[in-house]
Amino acid sequence: MNIIGYLAAVLTTFSFLPQALQVIKTKDTRGINLTMYVMFVVGVFCWTIYGVYLKDVAIILANAVTLLFSSVVLGYKWRYR
Amino acid sequence: MNIIGYLAAVLTTFSFLPQALQVIKTKDTRGINLTMYVMFVVGVFCWTIYGVYLKDVAIILANAVTLLFSSVVLGYKWRYR
Repeated sequence: MNIIGYLAAVLTTFSFLPQALQVIKTKDTRGINLTMYVMFVVGVFCWTIYGVYLKDVAIILANAVTLLFSSVVLGYKWRYR
Repeated sequence: MNIIGYLAAVLTTFSFLPQALQVIKTKDTRGINLTMYVMFVVGVFCWTIYGVYLKDVAIILANAVTLLFSSVVLGYKWRYR
């Protein structure tokens, strides 16, 4: 059953990679919601902090990677809004 | 410190609500990446299953709500791609 947990973590973490690559390539961010990415990036930052507090490497790693990808999307959305 | 965990969960869960409302209103999904939402929806579904396995109500609830919002975005992206 742990495989479902790992699969869940990998999918939700790396899902933001194709979105980040798309905005880098196209700079088309019109359909993307700014409020979503502000809330999401702050939320994932909080998850990372929470992982540090829990000393849980899986939570830290998954959220640090998600933070990187989603911050790219937020940065492009902010710049090309 | 638990407050950071709750804040993280609320922010990442409800961040998809403004995005869902925006696609419902504008039907503009061009900037949104289909692969991201397919991976994300499947991933969040796995998180929900994993929560059921762990009998952890917080994981189940947070992911069921995220699943709802992100499925709306995926549905609109699929229809108006």
